[in-house]
Amino acid sequence: MFAQIDLENAQRILLDRLSSLSSEYVVLTEGLNRVISENLFAVQDHPLNPQAAVDGFAVCGLPGGDSFRLLESPKNCEIRNLILKPGEGVRVTTGGLLPGNTEAVIPDEKIQKTSGEIIKLGQIVPGSNIKNPGEDFRRGELLAARGTCLSTGLIGLLMAFGYYRVPVFCRPKVLILSLGPQIVPCHVTPGPGEIRDSNGPLLGALSTKEGGRVIDIRTAGNKDLEESLDEISELFTEADLIITTGGTFDGQYNAVNWLFQKMNVETIFREVRMKPGCHNSAGFWKGRPVISLSGNPAACLVGFELLAAPVLRVLQGLNPNLKRVSGVCRNSYSGSQGPRCFLRGRLNYCEKGWTVDVLPGQKSSMMKSFINCNALIDLPAGRPSVQVGEEVSVILLTPFHFDLFAG
Amino acid sequence: MFAQIDLENAQRILLDRLSSLSSEYVVLTEGLNRVISENLFAVQDHPLNPQAAVDGFAVCGLPGGDSFRLLESPKNCEIRNLILKPGEGVRVTTGGLLPGNTEAVIPDEKIQKTSGEIIKLGQIVPGSNIKNPGEDFRRGELLAARGTCLSTGLIGLLMAFGYYRVPVFCRPKVLILSLGPQIVPCHVTPGPGEIRDSNGPLLGALSTKEGGRVIDIRTAGNKDLEESLDEISELFTEADLIITTGGTFDGQYNAVNWLFQKMNVETIFREVRMKPGCHNSAGFWKGRPVISLSGNPAACLVGFELLAAPVLRVLQGLNPNLKRVSGVCRNSYSGSQGPRCFLRGRLNYCEKGWTVDVLPGQKSSMMKSFINCNALIDLPAGRPSVQVGEEVSVILLTPFHFDLFAG
Repeated sequence: MFAQIDLENAQRILLDRLSSLSSEYVVLTEGLNRVISENLFAVQDHPLNPQAAVDGFAVCGLPGGDSFRLLESPKNCEIRNLILKPGEGVRVTTGGLLPGNTEAVIPDEKIQKTSGEIIKLGQIVPGSNIKNPGEDFRRGELLAARGTCLSTGLIGLLMAFGYYRVPVFCRPKVLILSLGPQIVPCHVTPGPGEIRDSNGPLLGALSTKEGGRVIDIRTAGNKDLEESLDEISELFTEADLIITTGGTFDGQYNAVNWLFQKMNVETIFREVRMKPGCHNSAGFWKGRPVISLSGNPAACLVGFELLAAPVLRVLQGLNPNLKRVSGVCRNSYSGSQGPRCFLRGRLNYCEKGWTVDVLPGQKSSMMKSFINCNALIDLPAGRPSVQVGEEVSVILLTPFHFDLFAG
Repeated sequence: MFAQIDLENAQRILLDRLSSLSSEYVVLTEGLNRVISENLFAVQDHPLNPQAAVDGFAVCGLPGGDSFRLLESPKNCEIRNLILKPGEGVRVTTGGLLPGNTEAVIPDEKIQKTSGEIIKLGQIVPGSNIKNPGEDFRRGELLAARGTCLSTGLIGLLMAFGYYRVPVFCRPKVLILSLGPQIVPCHVTPGPGEIRDSNGPLLGALSTKEGGRVIDIRTAGNKDLEESLDEISELFTEADLIITTGGTFDGQYNAVNWLFQKMNVETIFREVRMKPGCHNSAGFWKGRPVISLSGNPAACLVGFELLAAPVLRVLQGLNPNLKRVSGVCRNSYSGSQGPRCFLRGRLNYCEKGWTVDVLPGQKSSMMKSFINCNALIDLPAGRPSVQVGEEVSVILLTPFHFDLFAG
């Protein structure tokens, strides 16, 4: 009923039914890396009034005048009521208002101060060190477009315009279920034949990296599943994305099929033409995407990056496209006849350009490649292999890298 | 007394006196991007026992045998007490133990099942789908070296070895003080002539990005400083790094000098040959670094990246070196005669290699460049300028990018 489909097809039918989550307000200082959900504009000119660009002295009567009578400093808020006369100067501070008739601000280091007088050292052109109204931003200019990640610089900029709280897309709530019957929660010491759940924490960290918020990491064997179905149903309701790992095989004990049936998950694909992770499947439960990944750790990691990460990006209003570069492979790999293959690799930039290493431990059951993996090498179907010096298509895995790469 | 010094010299005398902070244990699942403080090794072979690499059936008697009598599945923990006889098979699951005499595991998709019997479809080589003990890791192999950032993959890997809690360097506690007399806290609506503190939140976000933990963002004019000196002294005690912004000018009202004197901060440099931010200074207070940055927003951002970010990296046991690439400039910039200049730029990788744009708004008082800034362009002293098509040295600003760049 469900034929194997291509990865791009799987991504498309998964993402086509998604839209970004609703938005919420967060305090700007808590919003690093959140995604802005509305265009934000300059609410006024910046600066609003002429301002001092340095700490120093506002002066009047520059042409010809080298010394200025130093007026007593008014409080900063009253300085704009002061009108300088030719030959007068007054202390001003960076970003502070200027008195009327200010011709320039002389920085401290170009001033010699005597009692009641300041003497200009060197040349000062009229207009120097004055920020003109609207010099930086005009009222109505776009500061940050919907879909922009809140960078450190944007946090400073938006705060200057009084955006103490900003609208951002909600972080997708992610539920993770480890379905293998022999899996025990990661805080439990495994008994003989049991395995500590490492895929759950792996998927949790991957979800966090992509901006998701993990609401629970559950382990459930077949029997436990039956017993905890009510609870799981409640968790499904709370989640924006459900990811399962393990129990994906094609036989009669398939825990994923069992769960999909019991929960009435509408399956959209059940097999993907890729290795590792050909048994990855997905569906929808009341509009929420459910992604089922293989229980083999490498297959789980690769499946997350190629299927779940794009979902998390769309839910946050981001572009889900995978980012790629061409890299020169520094070692060789020879796969057996089979489907398109995603190798765990280490991408590196050096003077000659991008290089990539095929990491040791490429069996889907092995985790050795996890130590240095920062990229996936995409090898076409047939007999996936790569020679030393061959150019390969490499998929970047860290969203923070994406802003370096066009498209 | 304190002559202007070169940036590299300033960095050196600041970093030379620092060492990494003490370490603490965190729950592994909470440790994404933290820095591991001890070498972590494989505590046992992985896998420890022969395991099934797929869901399927463990069989004995492969040579010649196409069908196997299906034994009733024991509980997983008891399967290792089972010894298969030739012609027998039993269900096993991925990662689960295998019965004695297992010759291979036949995956579900290569099995036809009848009542009490399984029939092999296609070829299965002896040893197939069995993970041998130590195949992935030998006991004692290094999993993560001291100084490694906890990646998503490492979280999965370490959990598989039972590292439920891991030793990491403490996050540096950062105190931020905005010293301009006209600055009001960011949650306060500024009155006439007052300025909302945007440098404080900017420095807070920058510190967070670099792994720091902001303990307070204070605004304090000269008068407030005097009154709150006891409180500031207490905050100094709590902090691992103190960053001030504003009040750096060279005149008699210099709030930084005042604060350094009152607090007995040992100044190590007071002027740096760079633009923006020539008035950046630094010192030590009871072993804690104190960095004073200009109050101009762009100077504040640049000063953080070149002086404070390396400090935060050393405190966390990381390499403090700035990461650079050569990029082709896509527009021109012409600075006035003066010191070495750090322009805010937008670095981008395309098919032809790295390009960089000089962003609009390069005055140190302007924030326009904050919108797209992801790099600094390092222009040498003299008459800092750059032409279209010229190669320039570009400093990367996001630590997450660093793992792509050697050295």
